[in-house]
Amino acid sequence: MIYLDNAATSKPDEECLKRAEKYLYDFYYNPSALYAEGYNIQLEIRAARKNILSLLASSENYELIFTSCGTEADNQAVFGAGKRGNVVTTSGEHSAVYSAVNQLRTRGVEVRFAALNPDGSVNADDLINLVDDKTSLVSVIHVGNETGAVNDIEKIAAAVKRKNPHAVFHSDGVQAFGKIPFRLSKDIDLYSVSAHKIGGIKGCGALIKRKSLALSPYIFGGGQESGARSGTENVFGIKNFEYAALKRFEKSDVNYKNARILNDLMWEKLDKSLFSRISPVNNSPYILTVGAEGVRGETILHEADDMGLVIGTGSACASNEKKRYSRVILACGVKESLADGILRLSFSPENSREEIEKAAFILNGIVKNRKNTMA
Amino acid sequence: MIYLDNAATSKPDEECLKRAEKYLYDFYYNPSALYAEGYNIQLEIRAARKNILSLLASSENYELIFTSCGTEADNQAVFGAGKRGNVVTTSGEHSAVYSAVNQLRTRGVEVRFAALNPDGSVNADDLINLVDDKTSLVSVIHVGNETGAVNDIEKIAAAVKRKNPHAVFHSDGVQAFGKIPFRLSKDIDLYSVSAHKIGGIKGCGALIKRKSLALSPYIFGGGQESGARSGTENVFGIKNFEYAALKRFEKSDVNYKNARILNDLMWEKLDKSLFSRISPVNNSPYILTVGAEGVRGETILHEADDMGLVIGTGSACASNEKKRYSRVILACGVKESLADGILRLSFSPENSREEIEKAAFILNGIVKNRKNTMA
Repeated sequence: MIYLDNAATSKPDEECLKRAEKYLYDFYYNPSALYAEGYNIQLEIRAARKNILSLLASSENYELIFTSCGTEADNQAVFGAGKRGNVVTTSGEHSAVYSAVNQLRTRGVEVRFAALNPDGSVNADDLINLVDDKTSLVSVIHVGNETGAVNDIEKIAAAVKRKNPHAVFHSDGVQAFGKIPFRLSKDIDLYSVSAHKIGGIKGCGALIKRKSLALSPYIFGGGQESGARSGTENVFGIKNFEYAALKRFEKSDVNYKNARILNDLMWEKLDKSLFSRISPVNNSPYILTVGAEGVRGETILHEADDMGLVIGTGSACASNEKKRYSRVILACGVKESLADGILRLSFSPENSREEIEKAAFILNGIVKNRKNTMA
Repeated sequence: MIYLDNAATSKPDEECLKRAEKYLYDFYYNPSALYAEGYNIQLEIRAARKNILSLLASSENYELIFTSCGTEADNQAVFGAGKRGNVVTTSGEHSAVYSAVNQLRTRGVEVRFAALNPDGSVNADDLINLVDDKTSLVSVIHVGNETGAVNDIEKIAAAVKRKNPHAVFHSDGVQAFGKIPFRLSKDIDLYSVSAHKIGGIKGCGALIKRKSLALSPYIFGGGQESGARSGTENVFGIKNFEYAALKRFEKSDVNYKNARILNDLMWEKLDKSLFSRISPVNNSPYILTVGAEGVRGETILHEADDMGLVIGTGSACASNEKKRYSRVILACGVKESLADGILRLSFSPENSREEIEKAAFILNGIVKNRKNTMA
């Protein structure tokens, strides 16, 4: 089987699973317990926090709050920082931000959506125009999960702060973390990451926060995570996240180059008379989004699946919305007949060139065959 | 090592870990994905939902929402149902409810705390007196996590509904689930449970909800859990929770009787000139809370730990509050000199009589020695 839906979730790294297993079988103590066995687990969580944070930012200025997933991290950022005035975001956000800001609307906060460029990146001028002195939060996705478009959040955050230094700047970094070379710059206050997109397991994420920013907790209780996130810590998930992140970052340069080769190869091998490119040229190398005019993406997905090729049609998280067209793809200005046939091909460092060539062959065959049948 | 802090967290059941392992190594697909491999995982989650729910309630009237922990389930209940008027709860709640209702206060909701009886159970008359036609939510812990006191929530919920049929009734069932014989009665609208107290792993819980009750989500995003809780599902945690719950319930009668024997044996073997009983006589057999007058609980805990005995001093979740005395123990009317020396001994079906006898011997020795030194 060829798995090209790595942006939905990645196969957990076996070595990292094995390394973390002892936190299931042996070191199961409650990290808040006062005895040595519990305290030692607390130290292990601290080490994980420090190590993951070090991959993105200096611990002098930033801290890391473990959450149960990227969605929870996004929710904590949005609901914690977007309490009043208006919130500015983009039309290309993951549903974790999109649904959360829409919820803010029901609480009397005005929400403003910046337009997307045709390549899926945010129109930065439009975004900055929407920011004013009543803006409490600006949230801009780092790498678009449906298009692979990379937003220059460092530059955008700086422009936001020039216009309103009090606005909090958040970015959903779930599709960027461990994939795109990046460190947090001083204008970025909050950044969400997730474990299961980089070889870790589902059920663990984190919100990285500028230390000087006061942010309310979102889940209240026993005061774990220094009060920022209560609930007994998912120790296995956290340690596994640490191992997976360290391993992924160790080879991130090689992986990046390799993903670029796979991404380019895929586009090269796809029949241009059948597929249009949605992803920008300077996309994240881990995502290639294409459209097949007049053929439903879901149809292609199921046929490919039957032939041993697993791909996505946009965001897995959007599949529950049960809408025919992706709001993000439409916001890129793609017409409905093409939006109907969107495929998201997303890569992992483990994919091989042979897999990509075979996948392109399968996809070309399916779409050509469909078109012939329809003609 | 003798582990008697099972109420803080339980050792994960090895057989259930092994059974669920395939969801880490092989069946890692995103449950929201449209291809067969993803949909099959969605079916596995549905099976887990159905099986866990069946242990507590009929699927005709109730549904189950998976959460990342018991604390999140409590937060969803409190923030979802306690939106206006007043909220009535008890002075014996776990911090997941206590901190959440205190947060409601800052949002203009009045919070009323019912007094505890000296044995740790809620004074039901006091609670009912606090309920009026402006009460939006009543939350009563099922089994007190610090005392093991069992509240008759079926009876209390019925009395609440007689006084105000519109009040939502929630109970934190984390220390009751899989331990106390119980099924949800019609007056209970919401019930929180957790996996890691019954042999499952940390990072997974659930909120059980009466179907006819409309409750807002607490985490917004991709619409997982039929929109009630977004975020990619912790599939391994959920399947492991299912296996652990089914296994625990299969033997719950035998376990209950065995825990009663251990609990009684522990109290029998503790030197009554050194220890006072805090737990009621009809406590949960899984928890025995005692106090050693004039000796700090933390001191006893560390000495016991050095001798291979792991015990708790009240709630692990309260250790982050860094307060000398437990608010719950003080609410039972325990004086401060005794509240200082509180020990919570909590059992699992795996504990043996030999372990209990040895534990009592160790605890008697430590306290006697401390008292002699002080004398």
